[in-house]
Amino acid sequence: MKIKVGIIGATGYAGAELVRLLVSHPQAELVALTTQSYEDSQFYEVYPYIYRYVDQKCLQLDPPSLVGAADVIFTALPHGHAMPVAREALRQGKKFIDLGADFRFDSREVYEKWYKVEHTAPDLLEQAVYGLPELHRDKIRSACLVGNPGCYPTSVILGLAPLLAHGLVDTGTVVADCKSGVSGAGRGLSLGVHFAEVNENFRAYNVGQHRHTPEIEQELSKLAGEDMVISFTPHLTPMNRGILSTLYARLKQEISAAKVRALYEEYYNGEFFVRVLPEGLLPQTKAVAGSNHCDLVPVVDPRTGRVVVISVIDNLIKGAAGQAVQNMNLMYDLPETMGLDRPGLYP
Amino acid sequence: MKIKVGIIGATGYAGAELVRLLVSHPQAELVALTTQSYEDSQFYEVYPYIYRYVDQKCLQLDPPSLVGAADVIFTALPHGHAMPVAREALRQGKKFIDLGADFRFDSREVYEKWYKVEHTAPDLLEQAVYGLPELHRDKIRSACLVGNPGCYPTSVILGLAPLLAHGLVDTGTVVADCKSGVSGAGRGLSLGVHFAEVNENFRAYNVGQHRHTPEIEQELSKLAGEDMVISFTPHLTPMNRGILSTLYARLKQEISAAKVRALYEEYYNGEFFVRVLPEGLLPQTKAVAGSNHCDLVPVVDPRTGRVVVISVIDNLIKGAAGQAVQNMNLMYDLPETMGLDRPGLYP
Amino acid sequence: MKIKVGIIGATGYAGAELVRLLVSHPQAELVALTTQSYEDSQFYEVYPYIYRYVDQKCLQLDPPSLVGAADVIFTALPHGHAMPVAREALRQGKKFIDLGADFRFDSREVYEKWYKVEHTAPDLLEQAVYGLPELHRDKIRSACLVGNPGCYPTSVILGLAPLLAHGLVDTGTVVADCKSGVSGAGRGLSLGVHFAEVNENFRAYNVGQHRHTPEIEQELSKLAGEDMVISFTPHLTPMNRGILSTLYARLKQEISAAKVRALYEEYYNGEFFVRVLPEGLLPQTKAVAGSNHCDLVPVVDPRTGRVVVISVIDNLIKGAAGQAVQNMNLMYDLPETMGLDRPGLYP
Amino acid sequence: MKIKVGIIGATGYAGAELVRLLVSHPQAELVALTTQSYEDSQFYEVYPYIYRYVDQKCLQLDPPSLVGAADVIFTALPHGHAMPVAREALRQGKKFIDLGADFRFDSREVYEKWYKVEHTAPDLLEQAVYGLPELHRDKIRSACLVGNPGCYPTSVILGLAPLLAHGLVDTGTVVADCKSGVSGAGRGLSLGVHFAEVNENFRAYNVGQHRHTPEIEQELSKLAGEDMVISFTPHLTPMNRGILSTLYARLKQEISAAKVRALYEEYYNGEFFVRVLPEGLLPQTKAVAGSNHCDLVPVVDPRTGRVVVISVIDNLIKGAAGQAVQNMNLMYDLPETMGLDRPGLYP
Repeated sequence: MKIKVGIIGATGYAGAELVRLLVSHPQAELVALTTQSYEDSQFYEVYPYIYRYVDQKCLQLDPPSLVGAADVIFTALPHGHAMPVAREALRQGKKFIDLGADFRFDSREVYEKWYKVEHTAPDLLEQAVYGLPELHRDKIRSACLVGNPGCYPTSVILGLAPLLAHGLVDTGTVVADCKSGVSGAGRGLSLGVHFAEVNENFRAYNVGQHRHTPEIEQELSKLAGEDMVISFTPHLTPMNRGILSTLYARLKQEISAAKVRALYEEYYNGEFFVRVLPEGLLPQTKAVAGSNHCDLVPVVDPRTGRVVVISVIDNLIKGAAGQAVQNMNLMYDLPETMGLDRPGLYP
Repeated sequence: MKIKVGIIGATGYAGAELVRLLVSHPQAELVALTTQSYEDSQFYEVYPYIYRYVDQKCLQLDPPSLVGAADVIFTALPHGHAMPVAREALRQGKKFIDLGADFRFDSREVYEKWYKVEHTAPDLLEQAVYGLPELHRDKIRSACLVGNPGCYPTSVILGLAPLLAHGLVDTGTVVADCKSGVSGAGRGLSLGVHFAEVNENFRAYNVGQHRHTPEIEQELSKLAGEDMVISFTPHLTPMNRGILSTLYARLKQEISAAKVRALYEEYYNGEFFVRVLPEGLLPQTKAVAGSNHCDLVPVVDPRTGRVVVISVIDNLIKGAAGQAVQNMNLMYDLPETMGLDRPGLYP
Repeated sequence: MKIKVGIIGATGYAGAELVRLLVSHPQAELVALTTQSYEDSQFYEVYPYIYRYVDQKCLQLDPPSLVGAADVIFTALPHGHAMPVAREALRQGKKFIDLGADFRFDSREVYEKWYKVEHTAPDLLEQAVYGLPELHRDKIRSACLVGNPGCYPTSVILGLAPLLAHGLVDTGTVVADCKSGVSGAGRGLSLGVHFAEVNENFRAYNVGQHRHTPEIEQELSKLAGEDMVISFTPHLTPMNRGILSTLYARLKQEISAAKVRALYEEYYNGEFFVRVLPEGLLPQTKAVAGSNHCDLVPVVDPRTGRVVVISVIDNLIKGAAGQAVQNMNLMYDLPETMGLDRPGLYP
Repeated sequence: MKIKVGIIGATGYAGAELVRLLVSHPQAELVALTTQSYEDSQFYEVYPYIYRYVDQKCLQLDPPSLVGAADVIFTALPHGHAMPVAREALRQGKKFIDLGADFRFDSREVYEKWYKVEHTAPDLLEQAVYGLPELHRDKIRSACLVGNPGCYPTSVILGLAPLLAHGLVDTGTVVADCKSGVSGAGRGLSLGVHFAEVNENFRAYNVGQHRHTPEIEQELSKLAGEDMVISFTPHLTPMNRGILSTLYARLKQEISAAKVRALYEEYYNGEFFVRVLPEGLLPQTKAVAGSNHCDLVPVVDPRTGRVVVISVIDNLIKGAAGQAVQNMNLMYDLPETMGLDRPGLYP
């Protein structure tokens, strides 16, 4: 029997990407898609590309009945909206994966400080698992409540994990310069996503203030075993999908490029979705567009004593919906790559 | 046992798209990839996005041994190069699908006139089948030699077929105004595909002289039961994938929009890959990007007495590699949608 | 003394382009910029690229005082909003150039039928001149009220004028297949201009129903000396600026390509802004981006008996603000190219 | 009498941009355009957008005669090719502005180490002036030989100059993460500029090894009064024009955002081309596309103790041809903004 899936917020880009992935997932069955903006529309009227694959109407959200109908609930909502649904899901003994920020933080205070809203389910934080399988696989397997990582954090944390786990870099010197495609801003309307304003344009935003900062710092600190503060600058790139993070850190001591590469390969040995690229190749966003991969290359620069890591993901897949499906697979003891085992699209 | 597949010209865009589709095809096994430009490279060095999915080296083409190793051979070569390989394949009793123009024409003279080369295997033209499954499914099933349609022709012929089959339009009034993404020009280098020259630019090319013209006319004439001459203008659009064809024809007599729509729906009833979109939707290239679909809508304009059909495909899939796989499925009595049954990528 | 200019609707794309052109115009002085959305903002806060060139606040529109302060008023407003301002301008003896549709039509009925609003100043239509200088230069010189042409009509009319003026084509066979960049849709927000929806996408819209149709037909009919009905299909192209029109018509009788080209060159002889490109070149939108040019090439296709004209403009310049400045120059007896005499930007 | 200008390498993007700017320059007259690839073609056949503005043929380079005909010679050539022409120009007493790297370095050794060619005119390095007017205006005024800065260096140096001049940051902590449009790669053909490879793609290249590194370090070191080594990572962005540099440095001591902003405003007080944007605005590449401006904003991040500077230019204008014209203006005692005093194009 298939896993019955409910998606709350199915008509945003992350929610729609969940629909796309799950409609081809051998063990999943979509039982409910909810939306705020397109109630009673056929889902394919909102996303015509999926005509003939999805034949369901968009529903208004009624948490108890939706939770009742599903085995696992995904929420792809603005922060602050997943908490009541999570509570209902756990009450009914269902599994819950939130693609927003509500369950990513160990500390309620950090969440409330950066997101400027009250956390109304702080008692659930303890059982929530940060859903980055490459770091927390075992906890995810047994979790009922997963806070699916943000897109930038996924790219940055995977990029730096081997360095921090091995204590190779001075933790106070980390700079994460990240570039995202426009789908990361969601499907909502604003001048900032108007084609003629974005196209042929490149800009930074929220310099030093982006809400993904504390999430990145939380996970990096765990890896390093000490509190870390980093500089993180997000940028908007005129493309649809993809994040490339350029990560800088000063090496504590001289180490060869070959040694660092070997550490990366070992650290991610057996990880299907993380690809440390063979020598001679550098990551590029298009190489992961449409797939759940994170491509990585560490470059040692002996001239400056820094290591520069290039890390790329598809922000809607490994940075959102794909990782959520990966988490679902783990929570249901399915092969971790199920429904995610195809290469992306190129060119 | 899986079908052993050889791909000749695997490192061009159409060939690489075949690799991508077949590597996930449940019944196919890639046994040889040949290339002119990247001999001895790992295929993933040429296309890093596919790292971990394909672990084969690019080979130099040696027709007899390649044909010997494969059950079916796909050629994705410039016109004029498939003929000797086709002959070898048929000699060894293998199946052959050419993505180029060498086996699309009933008439050797038409081919030679438009392509300016000699046809060196005219004796094979009679057994070659034009590989547009929606029109020639039965012949394809029993064919050994398939001439896979061009990208523009696929879009135009599927767009006009119901009108011509029902004799609704004046055959002398057909105009096909077609717009293609840049991948249609291939991976070869020229100023015409330089990013800074194409981006933020839109242009027509080969006005009245494109080689797909006689191919379109051949198939439309069969549908109409009379010789047709059309105006066909291709344009280059600053995007990677997709063709949109805007097709104009004068209606022989007044007919309601509802009637025409009903004829289209009936004509393509049961065709999974051709989607006559529900009322209220118009085709757009992104809705088929990454899939084997052709989306269609006929619009009747009573003011002018014309019908305007909008038809879109992904030029690399339904316009090339996807259709070739669809043909392979037919030739091997597999479900026609095998390996092609997932929605595309959006956005 | 410089011409005092007021721009109503200065913060839309057409209005802002007027600001850009006029701020460098040797004989113009911006005295008032009005807006609905950005009242009291500095204009450079709305368009930071122009910082240091414009030091004016956006004002709320008060027609009497604005008209009083200016010698010439440009309106770049949605249709239906220019009429009361035009009346006030003429009352005060000022010149008026409307970039919207309110004064483009000879017939109030045609306007009301296509635009679905009442025309509240039908008495002014008689003195309004259709502001396409290459066709109506003398009338514009002495006009007080100019209806500046639409973007698509400018491209289509200039493209077909020589054919119709010489009676070369069957007027019932004209098809205008037009492709526009996204700035043509304005700066307003909608899913239709969301970057991730437009980028890598190409689509038709308003098939057979676009409001520029009657405007094109009005001017073509004058040129042909008979009522014309055409098929016009607009398309949205993933780029910021530019329109390319592909224009089809059946030739009444055989005529050589050289003869047609010569007629075009003669027809536009002395026209600085219309460039019939030398043999071997085809128009492309990027070649006119940033300039007031219309590039044209007629292609005779003896195979089909049709002529295919390719015509390109920058929709915001020759298709809107640049043409409006050209009209202003004529109305003030200035050199027609003043402020418009620089090449565009490439690449 | 106008300044007679010769441009060597006029058909690359930087050379063609010089043509565009100088054809509208009130005091310049183009007397010779040379090219390697398009000898005897009309310049407008190579760049059709400029038809009717330039009526000159592309010539083969003959240094003595070209130098003889011109007052000032611009070279836009690959490195290593400007030296013999410079010598000839100086021999004939002409002015010389090189847009390549041959005359940017104080040290022949640094040049030879990074560019891997011999410097054949090391005796000229002493009189060569690094052509960044905002830093070296007086020397440029009296120079005969100017090494025009690279695109990345212009953006980085202008971005960091106030910080270093005031000794505010720890010089060992500077990271320059830079993103460029594709025109920066030139008009030459390679897979790396193929539209379908670049579009929807973002990638880093030459990590830690780009040749602009020593140029940046040379100028920053002068500003800081000590030898500096920086991390510089260039990236390719899917757009035509523009560079955005994100510059990180650790502050030596706490300082308020207002204080840093004030220092920037004071440092660039009176500089028309450098715009420290008003509070509330952040630089974006489109805001300088088509103009000679460099837009800057310093952001102090007290959380990390770093300052992050965002700096943007049009790589072909302030990063190449525009700056070269600015230098010419200075060398001829013309107003520095002559021919460069118009806003760019938006959107």
